[in-house]
Amino acid sequence: MRLFTVGPVMMYPETLEESGRQLPYFRTAEFSAMMLDSEAVLKRLLGAEDASKVAFLTASGTGAMEAAVSNTLTSDDKVLIIIGGGFGRRFAEICDVHNIPYDSVDLEFGETLTGDRLEAFRGRGYSALLVNIDETSTGQLYDIHLLSDFCRSEGMMLIVDAISSFLADDLDMERDGIDEIILSSQKALSLEPGISMVVVSPRAYDRIRMIPSPSYYLDLDHYFIDQERGQTPFTPAVGTLINLNHMLHMVESKGLDRKISETAALASYFREGARRIGLIIPDYPLSNAVTPVLFDGNATEVFESLRERGITVTPSGGDLKNRLLRVGHIGNLSESDYDILLKELEEIIG
Amino acid sequence: MRLFTVGPVMMYPETLEESGRQLPYFRTAEFSAMMLDSEAVLKRLLGAEDASKVAFLTASGTGAMEAAVSNTLTSDDKVLIIIGGGFGRRFAEICDVHNIPYDSVDLEFGETLTGDRLEAFRGRGYSALLVNIDETSTGQLYDIHLLSDFCRSEGMMLIVDAISSFLADDLDMERDGIDEIILSSQKALSLEPGISMVVVSPRAYDRIRMIPSPSYYLDLDHYFIDQERGQTPFTPAVGTLINLNHMLHMVESKGLDRKISETAALASYFREGARRIGLIIPDYPLSNAVTPVLFDGNATEVFESLRERGITVTPSGGDLKNRLLRVGHIGNLSESDYDILLKELEEIIG
Repeated sequence: MRLFTVGPVMMYPETLEESGRQLPYFRTAEFSAMMLDSEAVLKRLLGAEDASKVAFLTASGTGAMEAAVSNTLTSDDKVLIIIGGGFGRRFAEICDVHNIPYDSVDLEFGETLTGDRLEAFRGRGYSALLVNIDETSTGQLYDIHLLSDFCRSEGMMLIVDAISSFLADDLDMERDGIDEIILSSQKALSLEPGISMVVVSPRAYDRIRMIPSPSYYLDLDHYFIDQERGQTPFTPAVGTLINLNHMLHMVESKGLDRKISETAALASYFREGARRIGLIIPDYPLSNAVTPVLFDGNATEVFESLRERGITVTPSGGDLKNRLLRVGHIGNLSESDYDILLKELEEIIG
Repeated sequence: MRLFTVGPVMMYPETLEESGRQLPYFRTAEFSAMMLDSEAVLKRLLGAEDASKVAFLTASGTGAMEAAVSNTLTSDDKVLIIIGGGFGRRFAEICDVHNIPYDSVDLEFGETLTGDRLEAFRGRGYSALLVNIDETSTGQLYDIHLLSDFCRSEGMMLIVDAISSFLADDLDMERDGIDEIILSSQKALSLEPGISMVVVSPRAYDRIRMIPSPSYYLDLDHYFIDQERGQTPFTPAVGTLINLNHMLHMVESKGLDRKISETAALASYFREGARRIGLIIPDYPLSNAVTPVLFDGNATEVFESLRERGITVTPSGGDLKNRLLRVGHIGNLSESDYDILLKELEEIIG
């Protein structure tokens, strides 16, 4: 069984070994020390300021998206959302639930986000930009420098869902002026789904502290306060947090740049092979995490044929269901896995 | 290492073995079939009506508590909460966040909930009762028949947090007129924390469908709709859900009554031994899940001494920090584990 999905992904032997062990109790000094260590490593990997705050939520990534949005923004704000797929729409739906006014930069499928598309939104008093830096539903990687410059010149906060982009693409909170970043355990961290993180700059934290949370469970300030002593307000997914600590150290030992360049190399390897066998890849900028592949109405059949051969790629939903499959490059994968995938794909479409 | 905590608990070998395996992708027919099967077994174990709905949330138990309260009740309701400890207070704090008016039956530490305490709240127009049937912070098991009769005669909905009581004490949704029940993976189910469930009666479901959810992530109706095809709206803790399916079948094969009576027998075994060595157990009614033990200001020292001997019991927080330890009877434990615990306890206090 091979997963080229974008969560869960192929896990590392170290993670699986640890997952088979009895969990410890967590209201202890040892667990607190581990959580403080995870916070420190995570901040280094993100280029976050020392005074940034980290919340470890026991939730899917969407829980962390809602926590970030609803603890930072209110009905007095005016927000701009980049909507180029399902995850952009999710930010909009979250704003709807919380009565946060927004406009959106709506991209057609296949359209690249350019600076021209942003110009119309200048000088209109937006307080924040919400973006899925890798719009995972299409694989488009938006230009962080473009968005960063726009937010700086407009005095807007920049809130980035980097759930599928973290460890796959180059991002740096301080360099890129990112106020809040949203992460999840089951992407390049290659852990079980269930832990998601929100990391916020000191500036964003000042705002969050002043805004009453509309939720008890997703009250970020409660998590930030408890994390000061390495704890969580509620019983967390203890095993996933232990594995997270190990994985953060594995990535830091390897080096973040090397981790990203290895993922980029796998993505290139697959993309070259895919084009060689006649597959069509959209020409918008791509995240290293995932490659979208276009089909002419038979994506579901190809997905099912691959499944019968022990291979799972990522299916699409909605309008793209029969047009798009997505091939992940995160998790414990190597070139030989792509050789097998490409061979099977060639047989199926040949 | 031995855990007598009330979550995480000692896990079963079958769970640990499964946890060491690569996770599958979950947007598949196989995963859907498993989730529908889990729903069916869970309903049988709870005595839930066939038309009841089940939400599998990737969240701590508190997330499920908030989902149940905030998707069922609004500022037009008037709620009664049994507050006999930290988890009763948590229900009140959740109501505060959502502007749900409430009164509370406030119990002093050590006070038993009796019918007399409820009489003052009759005929005052409450729409729902919120109760942690085992108030895990003290171990008091409230009388479900008392509460059930009260709610029936007052025409109130009955919403029960059974997080620590499920599989340890006798509960039956239909018999006891329970409209909503809240469960979590890390108690008697003995799994990793991270999955919590809300099971609602058809009557409660009719109400939930009419009330707009104040949260996107905790919108129960979204979970109920997707669970009709065995799916979740957001990427769930896939591994914990696989283990949940196995555990539900293990419990059903053993028989629910036998599971509960085995836990009751372990609780009795420990309680007899504890009294024999001079420990003091409060005289309010106790859940089979946990035994509170009173100390004279040295609970923290006893907790630490046990930790040094490889044993972890459950510490208390707040006012009870130095007065109360709690010994769990859920998870993979046997009489010999209690023999060791009692021997160590006797040495420490002797």
